[in-house]
Amino acid sequence: MALIVQKYGGTSMGSPERIKNVARRVAKFHAQGHRLVVVVSAMSGETNRLVALAQALSRAPDPREMDMVVSTGEQVSIGLLALALQDIGVPAKSYTGGQVKILTDSAFSKARILGIDEAAIRRDLSEGKVVVVAGFQGVDADGNITTLGRGGSDTTGVALAAALKADECQIYTDVDGVYTTDPRIVPEARKLDTITFEEMLEMASLGSKVLQIRSVEFAGKYKVKLRVLSSFEEEGEGTLITVEENRNMEQPVISGIAFNRDEAKITVLGVPDQPGIAYQIVGPVAEANIDVDMIIQNVGRDGTADFSFTVSRGDLDKTVNVLDRVKAVIGAKAIEADKNLCKVSVVGVGMHSHPGVAAKMFRTLSEEGINIRMISTSEIKISVAIEEKYLELAVRVLHKAFDLDRHI
Amino acid sequence: MALIVQKYGGTSMGSPERIKNVARRVAKFHAQGHRLVVVVSAMSGETNRLVALAQALSRAPDPREMDMVVSTGEQVSIGLLALALQDIGVPAKSYTGGQVKILTDSAFSKARILGIDEAAIRRDLSEGKVVVVAGFQGVDADGNITTLGRGGSDTTGVALAAALKADECQIYTDVDGVYTTDPRIVPEARKLDTITFEEMLEMASLGSKVLQIRSVEFAGKYKVKLRVLSSFEEEGEGTLITVEENRNMEQPVISGIAFNRDEAKITVLGVPDQPGIAYQIVGPVAEANIDVDMIIQNVGRDGTADFSFTVSRGDLDKTVNVLDRVKAVIGAKAIEADKNLCKVSVVGVGMHSHPGVAAKMFRTLSEEGINIRMISTSEIKISVAIEEKYLELAVRVLHKAFDLDRHI
Repeated sequence: MALIVQKYGGTSMGSPERIKNVARRVAKFHAQGHRLVVVVSAMSGETNRLVALAQALSRAPDPREMDMVVSTGEQVSIGLLALALQDIGVPAKSYTGGQVKILTDSAFSKARILGIDEAAIRRDLSEGKVVVVAGFQGVDADGNITTLGRGGSDTTGVALAAALKADECQIYTDVDGVYTTDPRIVPEARKLDTITFEEMLEMASLGSKVLQIRSVEFAGKYKVKLRVLSSFEEEGEGTLITVEENRNMEQPVISGIAFNRDEAKITVLGVPDQPGIAYQIVGPVAEANIDVDMIIQNVGRDGTADFSFTVSRGDLDKTVNVLDRVKAVIGAKAIEADKNLCKVSVVGVGMHSHPGVAAKMFRTLSEEGINIRMISTSEIKISVAIEEKYLELAVRVLHKAFDLDRHI
Repeated sequence: MALIVQKYGGTSMGSPERIKNVARRVAKFHAQGHRLVVVVSAMSGETNRLVALAQALSRAPDPREMDMVVSTGEQVSIGLLALALQDIGVPAKSYTGGQVKILTDSAFSKARILGIDEAAIRRDLSEGKVVVVAGFQGVDADGNITTLGRGGSDTTGVALAAALKADECQIYTDVDGVYTTDPRIVPEARKLDTITFEEMLEMASLGSKVLQIRSVEFAGKYKVKLRVLSSFEEEGEGTLITVEENRNMEQPVISGIAFNRDEAKITVLGVPDQPGIAYQIVGPVAEANIDVDMIIQNVGRDGTADFSFTVSRGDLDKTVNVLDRVKAVIGAKAIEADKNLCKVSVVGVGMHSHPGVAAKMFRTLSEEGINIRMISTSEIKISVAIEEKYLELAVRVLHKAFDLDRHI
C-alpha cells in the first residue's frame, strides 16, 4: 500500500466528462488501498481565458493581481474533482495552495516553493481521504496568493511527493511516456520504460516537452521517483524517471534523439583574440535576460577570432541590438545572424563509457550530405546545429543508426 | 474626506467594459480624497456557470467543495477591478474574504459572519490605496473557504462598513434607488430620497428585491448608513436608508406599495377549536423547512375552526404532503390549496400614528370590486391576499389613493 502523488494536467481536466474519468482512475488506486494526493491544473483553456480578461483591463498587469485572478483556475478544478470523487463514493477533500500551505517567496507569477506544511494532508490521508491539491499556486509569508509560472503544477506534484516522502509521483499527460524521439517524425520511435533524470533534462530542454524542466530538476534533487503516464489510456506503465543508471547490458548506449527548431546563430566576426573577450560579448547578452546556448570560438590566422553562439529565434533581434551597441567596445569587425538553423542531439548516459558516439553521429550525417555548423557536447549528449531543412532527415537517420527503431 | 464602502453587483461587473466603468467611478471618489473599500460580486453569469459545472459532476454537491468552486467568481472580480484601477493610476490592492480575514461559522453556502479583522485594510487605506474585497465569502476557524449565500455581497459590504465604522455604505445596483412601487406597474412611481430600515425590510421581503434582507437587518443593527444607487448613472443621490424616522411633516404616511406574486394559500378545514391546534399544524410545516407567511384562524359555529396560511408557491405541494400526513392526528376534515393568490402591502412607519390607513386600503380595494381573502398587519405594514389577476389594478389604485404618484 503506497503513498502516491498523482498530477493531472489541463487536458485531462478539460471537461466534466474528463474530470469524471480522472475521478474513476483515482478511485481505482484508492480501492487498491493506496493513499493518494492528487494535484490538478486548471481546465484547459481556463488560464488563457483569465489572462485575456486581465489583459483587457490592464496594459501592464500587476503580477500580484494577475496571480489573484489566474489562481482561480486551479481552485475550480480541485473543487470539481473532489465533488466527482465524492459522487462515486470516494471520500475527498480539496486544498488551495494557501490552505495546504505551500509557502513560496513573493516572486508573483514565477514564485519558488520555500516549504510545505504537510500536517493537514497527512491527517486527511490517515482518515482514508483522497487529498486534492491545487497545482501551480502557493502563498507567500504575508498571505498573498502566488503562482509558480506556467507548467508549475508538475512542480507542485513533485514538491508534495518530496515533502510527503511519497513512494511515487505520477504525472498524467496526453502522451503515454517518453519516446526515443518525436513519433511524428520517426514512426518507429519507441517508448522508453526508464530514463535517468539527467537524460530527461537533456531531452526536455532540447524540445521533448513532456515534463516541465524545473519539476525534473526538483525530482532529481529530492530523489522523487517520477513516472510519466497517459491519462487517456487504462493500461500502461509509462516511463519511469530514475536516479540510477540501472539499465541492463543490452540497453542501447543512446536513449533518444532530441531536437529543437527554435535556434538562431549569431557570429561576431574579427574580435581581438585576447583574454576576457568571451565575457565582453556574452556578458551584455546575459544582462539583457537572453539565454545563450551553444558557444564556439575560432581563432583565425590574423590574430582575431570569430565568436559564435545560438539563442532562441525570438531573442535574435534583441541580441543583435545588444551587440550593435557593444561592437565598438569589443572591436568587432561585423555581426552576422542566421535564422535557418536547428539543433539535433543524441542523448544517453551510456555514451561516456562508449567512445565513438560522436564519430558515428558525424559519419551518419555526412553520409546524408548534412553539413554540421556547430557542435557542443556534455557528459551525456552531443548536439549539432544544422540547416533546418535537414531536421527530419537527420533525426530519422540518427534514430536508425543508434539502433533506436522499434523492432517489431 | 469620508471613509466609504462601495458595493458593486454582478451586473455592474458584467464585462471588462463595465469593470472599467466601475474603476472610473471609484477613481472619481478617490480623487476627491475619500478613503474607499470596494466590495464586488462575481461577473454576472459566472456563479451560475460554476454551479452548473459542479452539478454536472455531483448529484448532491458537498457544500464545502461547492463553496471552494463558486468563491472563485468573486476572486476573479477583485483581481480584475484592482488591475483596472491600477491601469488608470489608482493604487489598489485586492483581498479574498480569507485574506481580510472575514471570519465566519462553518455553515457552508450560508455562513454567518462572526468577525472581521480590519487591520490590513486600515493599513492599506492609510497608504492611500483603494482596497478591493471579494463579496459573498469568508473563511471559517479551520481555514475553509465559506460563502454567505446568494446576494451575500451586500452583507459583506455592510459588515465591512460596520467593522470600519465607515461614514456610508453605498450599494450600486441596476436601479437608481428604492421606489414607492414597481415602476413597471405604476409608471408614476416615485424614487424615495429616504426610507427607514424597518420600511426597507418590509419592502424587500415583500418583493422589492433591491437589497438582500440580511444586509438591511445587519445595517439596522450596526447603524450603518446605507445608500442604494445606480451604477449606470453618473448623477443621482439614490435612496438613503436611515435609522431615524427623520421625515418632514409633509411626507406621506405611506412610503410604498409592495407586492409578491409568489403566494399560495392552504386551508385546513374543520379542525377542533382547542389550544395547541395552531402549533400542531404549523409545527410539522416549519420542520419541513417551509416558511409560513400570513396566518388566519376562523372559529366556526360547530366548535371547529378553519386554519389558513400562505406559503411560497414552490412549497405548496410539499406543504400539502406534510399536512396529509398529519391530517388524522389533528382531526381535520379537509385540506384545500389555492395557487392563484398574490399579496399586496402598504408600508410606512407613519401609519402607527395615523389611524385610518387600513380603512382607506380596504375601501379603495372594495371600490374596485377586489375581494380581500386574507389580512395581516404589523406596526408598519398592512398586507392583503387577493386574487392574482387583480394585482396590477390593486397596486395602481393604492399607489394613487395614498398619494404616492409623482407630481410632475
